[in-house]
Amino acid sequence: MDTRTLDAADVPPSQPEEGTPWLTAGEQRLWRAHLEVAKLLDYQLGRELQPHNLAINDYEILVVLSEAPERRMRMTDLATATLQSKSRLSHQITRMETAGLVLRQECPGDRRGLYAHLTEQGWETMQKVAPDHVRSVRAHFIDRFTPEQLDAMYEALAPVAEHLRGLRGRG
Amino acid sequence: MDTRTLDAADVPPSQPEEGTPWLTAGEQRLWRAHLEVAKLLDYQLGRELQPHNLAINDYEILVVLSEAPERRMRMTDLATATLQSKSRLSHQITRMETAGLVLRQECPGDRRGLYAHLTEQGWETMQKVAPDHVRSVRAHFIDRFTPEQLDAMYEALAPVAEHLRGLRGRG
Repeated sequence: MDTRTLDAADVPPSQPEEGTPWLTAGEQRLWRAHLEVAKLLDYQLGRELQPHNLAINDYEILVVLSEAPERRMRMTDLATATLQSKSRLSHQITRMETAGLVLRQECPGDRRGLYAHLTEQGWETMQKVAPDHVRSVRAHFIDRFTPEQLDAMYEALAPVAEHLRGLRGRG
Repeated sequence: MDTRTLDAADVPPSQPEEGTPWLTAGEQRLWRAHLEVAKLLDYQLGRELQPHNLAINDYEILVVLSEAPERRMRMTDLATATLQSKSRLSHQITRMETAGLVLRQECPGDRRGLYAHLTEQGWETMQKVAPDHVRSVRAHFIDRFTPEQLDAMYEALAPVAEHLRGLRGRG
């Protein structure tokens, strides 16, 4: 096992078990379809947010903050909620602060650090953008499945999401 | 419609059609499950490549180049194949060149620019990493579905991937 990483203790041994089989043709085509949809959808949704001068990650921040109590969150919790590193989030919030969408403030009496607040402008931007974004999500993903497919995909993906959340939590 | 973007002509009108309905609870839960799986899986697979000192995007480049004729590709084609911008790819290839995995070279007699070549070390790295990566893909995605789910998901996702590839091609 290669241990040239600080986090080696956190990740499973890199040596494959004997006989981990290669993907079959059927498995391979699903794996590639998943990767393609994930990547191309991200690209397309981002592209359709361009007229609003928003990146897809910016939109996600607006949504998460808008659903939080008092429309604010501790930066560390926001990093966890949006699954990004603190340093990357910090850069993003700086950009969004310049655009007037959020505000970073220390919370008096709370030494656990900075909060990101949704500004009134951030709230209005989200309200304005949301219908377009829903239209994009429908056009390029949701409306392309039958009701049966919607249910079957959720049944298949929900346990995977739960498994991955568990791993992330231990990270 | 907000038209403050240079690419406004390329994207659909941002005004939603009358009555684009919000996502139902069932649609919303699939949409969130998809986003979560896409993001967390990317994170987890990247994490399990860390002992090999490879990022997930690096691994993708190794795979694409290893499958190309003469294990090389024009930089512009490689950007298209990996769905990233030329400038971002260029930064990535610079890092991978430093690590000895790829080599950038002009092709004599071809004025259409630079090629990225897989080096012998890059090829060996991919061979060494692939079994671990397959194990990760199985453990966190493929082996979590029944054979029926595998087929159903492919049937559902393949047309979406095709639709999105078409949009991307027109981009």
